[in-house]
Amino acid sequence: MEELTSRTNPAVKEYVKLRDSRSYRYQTGCFVLESHKLVQEALDSDVLVETVWMTAKAMEKFPELLKTALEKKIPVVQISKEIEQKCTLTGNAGGVFARCGGLKIIDKTQEVTKIGHDGKYLFLVDLQDTGNVGTILRTALALGVDGVIVSATTCDLYSLKVLRASMGCLFRLPVYRSSAPAEDLKNLSRRFVTYAAVVDDQAMPVGSFSFAVNSIVVIGNEGNGLPEEVCSACAHRITIPMKGRAESLNASMAAGLLMWEQMKKT
Amino acid sequence: MEELTSRTNPAVKEYVKLRDSRSYRYQTGCFVLESHKLVQEALDSDVLVETVWMTAKAMEKFPELLKTALEKKIPVVQISKEIEQKCTLTGNAGGVFARCGGLKIIDKTQEVTKIGHDGKYLFLVDLQDTGNVGTILRTALALGVDGVIVSATTCDLYSLKVLRASMGCLFRLPVYRSSAPAEDLKNLSRRFVTYAAVVDDQAMPVGSFSFAVNSIVVIGNEGNGLPEEVCSACAHRITIPMKGRAESLNASMAAGLLMWEQMKKT
Repeated sequence: MEELTSRTNPAVKEYVKLRDSRSYRYQTGCFVLESHKLVQEALDSDVLVETVWMTAKAMEKFPELLKTALEKKIPVVQISKEIEQKCTLTGNAGGVFARCGGLKIIDKTQEVTKIGHDGKYLFLVDLQDTGNVGTILRTALALGVDGVIVSATTCDLYSLKVLRASMGCLFRLPVYRSSAPAEDLKNLSRRFVTYAAVVDDQAMPVGSFSFAVNSIVVIGNEGNGLPEEVCSACAHRITIPMKGRAESLNASMAAGLLMWEQMKKT
Repeated sequence: MEELTSRTNPAVKEYVKLRDSRSYRYQTGCFVLESHKLVQEALDSDVLVETVWMTAKAMEKFPELLKTALEKKIPVVQISKEIEQKCTLTGNAGGVFARCGGLKIIDKTQEVTKIGHDGKYLFLVDLQDTGNVGTILRTALALGVDGVIVSATTCDLYSLKVLRASMGCLFRLPVYRSSAPAEDLKNLSRRFVTYAAVVDDQAMPVGSFSFAVNSIVVIGNEGNGLPEEVCSACAHRITIPMKGRAESLNASMAAGLLMWEQMKKT
């Protein structure tokens, strides 16, 4: 088995660059993962895992993961404690890392035009908080949403922070990309009933109506909400009625409540 | 106006101690806040704000806050940039801090035995993630829950991280304390219908039944769930049905969905 011990090894430098730079990820088509849980999720899905790095201690602790990687003929490299410290973003990687490829291919197959003719979808426009986006993806998968559409201005889904907050759900949830949300929503409105989530007493209160069988719920930026042109492109404006004096719900909580209602059988 | 410039001033040291030590908070009955938003929330509520600290820049930027404090005859101390850096936990306090008192009094009035005879409550048993607990409090207030009961083993609500994630909602939401959750739930069951939230296919699926008018929903620890003795003390076991392969929802998301259903008019 190959072994890496120097923190200045070019492979370590490249790992850190993939971890920290969105543009480098899209330039190379690669992204990185840390933690036993995320790497196992990636190995169990269709993600193209190129290399797995483990400390000696992690190899003892996670024999199943090691076995899966070797069976799939993925190179496993033993790394030192020093390299673990250099590579970890969160401080609790547990000595397990992976470099994955295939980003460009994933992208190409996921233009919003490729979306099906029916189902229930969530559309994220310009969300910026990686923790929120990760939590939303995890919730979408748990509640059975058919897929998530993200605007090009939403934070990068392949950042480690999103991958961690989503608990690897990104690998199993269909994700589509939209570079022109208002225009795409106008086109999608021919097949789906579209709902813009807003903070507005005049909008339709969620809970007082049933969502259409084929529906798209559109969520906006944490601070600014949805742009008017996106709202105008949707069939309905909907809002979560607030009973207390709190100004608003956290964006991921609002998205969770909306998906919960959207997924109810009518 | 008094001015503080030295990072080694005893008042600064005490601020940091109150920020970092739960036991010191309970020993003195004091806690601290940072950020314009939180301090304003505290000034606008019944919280006993003892002192407000502001940098010269913050005084220019937040004249309303300064005015409120002075009108309430609360001493305002001007602090240096160095003291701001020493005191801030999050790095974005915006030059505004406060020291508040009255913790013991708040505690005493909030034993779970003081809870009313009707209403809709949430009971948190052993939750440890400060971000989750803060988000739950914020959501509870927004959805109109009558109050939240927390076990003594749940993380300290007066830690700055909870106060920040809850956006100050703690000041406006009735909170009760329970040192013996199973026993307290048995007593509360005489007046309320109690629901233990579990991850279990055999439990009653949320969405398939209506919550009682007077109800308590009980949520457990992020990793371990609820202890069996707490479940046994409740009238019902309920679960959020999962449609995807994700193992579970984030604890605050699960609590949010449960409160949403609990608050629905039947």
